[in-house]
Amino acid sequence: MEYFPPALETLIEHFAKLPGIGGKTAQRLAFHVLTLPDADADAFADAIRGARQATALCSVCRNLTDGDLCAICRSDRRDPSVICVVADPRDVAAMERTREFSGRYHVLHGVLSPLRGVGPDDLEIKSLLERVAQGGVTEVIMATNPDTEGEATALYLSRLLRPFDVKITRLAYGIPVGSHLEFADDATLLRALEGRQEM
Amino acid sequence: MEYFPPALETLIEHFAKLPGIGGKTAQRLAFHVLTLPDADADAFADAIRGARQATALCSVCRNLTDGDLCAICRSDRRDPSVICVVADPRDVAAMERTREFSGRYHVLHGVLSPLRGVGPDDLEIKSLLERVAQGGVTEVIMATNPDTEGEATALYLSRLLRPFDVKITRLAYGIPVGSHLEFADDATLLRALEGRQEM
Repeated sequence: MEYFPPALETLIEHFAKLPGIGGKTAQRLAFHVLTLPDADADAFADAIRGARQATALCSVCRNLTDGDLCAICRSDRRDPSVICVVADPRDVAAMERTREFSGRYHVLHGVLSPLRGVGPDDLEIKSLLERVAQGGVTEVIMATNPDTEGEATALYLSRLLRPFDVKITRLAYGIPVGSHLEFADDATLLRALEGRQEM
Repeated sequence: MEYFPPALETLIEHFAKLPGIGGKTAQRLAFHVLTLPDADADAFADAIRGARQATALCSVCRNLTDGDLCAICRSDRRDPSVICVVADPRDVAAMERTREFSGRYHVLHGVLSPLRGVGPDDLEIKSLLERVAQGGVTEVIMATNPDTEGEATALYLSRLLRPFDVKITRLAYGIPVGSHLEFADDATLLRALEGRQEM
């Protein structure tokens, strides 16, 4: 038996299909939408369509953009000779929050994952090689996640890039700032020890 | 600086306004929407508008409905002489899942809360009294939440209903089925002891 009107059940189902949203949360969200002012609800519905229609991939770095080039590739204050390779557009946002990186990006849109059937052709690897082959690139920083798949992807890319005359680097591993040594896992602590720097 | 295209930022903001959805989750949800097939995204946007337009309150019990009467008030298999008073339409769904209650409901749409400025006139109390005053009701079951505000609301209603010739009952308190005694809080355990039943 349905406990809610069909239109409400439909909205609950749509919310429940979103990642990490369970049945109870989907109900709470749908009920909240019912209580929104009309203008807000319409704007929400429009935003769903609008975000998809207005969002494309940068023709150079494959980051999200609303034009042909993304804001970073458009900017002449960003150094085109350093490319930071990330798995996801959200990682670009994370790197940008450091306000320290002045190079450009390349977004792979995933990592290699034999288990999930993701191979090199499913990622933006060809476009990265083409960028590097065009010349003018001096360093490629691997900034994939520090997990097995991210590691394997970085390693795979570093081999592909070896024929080119570029420096290939990897983000440093170590203990997170503000954390406690006693809570660090063994692998992280080992990496932190191996990567120790002179003070 | 904006890290994402404006249309995507807009969608993220809409998700972030939903209850219990933080910034990171809103990003994840918005990115998921970008990956949806067109038809699914359009259906989601339509569902937001549709749920609001097609959903009204039952003219009798104030439960959500897509017509004048809700499915429960429409059904002649539901006993109109027993009214279960709940705070929220979601509580109707919870009660219905027991498949044991064959009476009807009354949805208050909130509980009395002096701190949040919710008084008797903000709830569906007048409509409840009118229903009972019309006669034919033999029992009113208070099924508000077992917290301070839910308790106070049930107590307030029971006083208002005292002049009518109806039995007023309250859902039983006790230890939740499947839980462990050692994890029960003192108040619950005390209520369970007070409400003990002969075996």
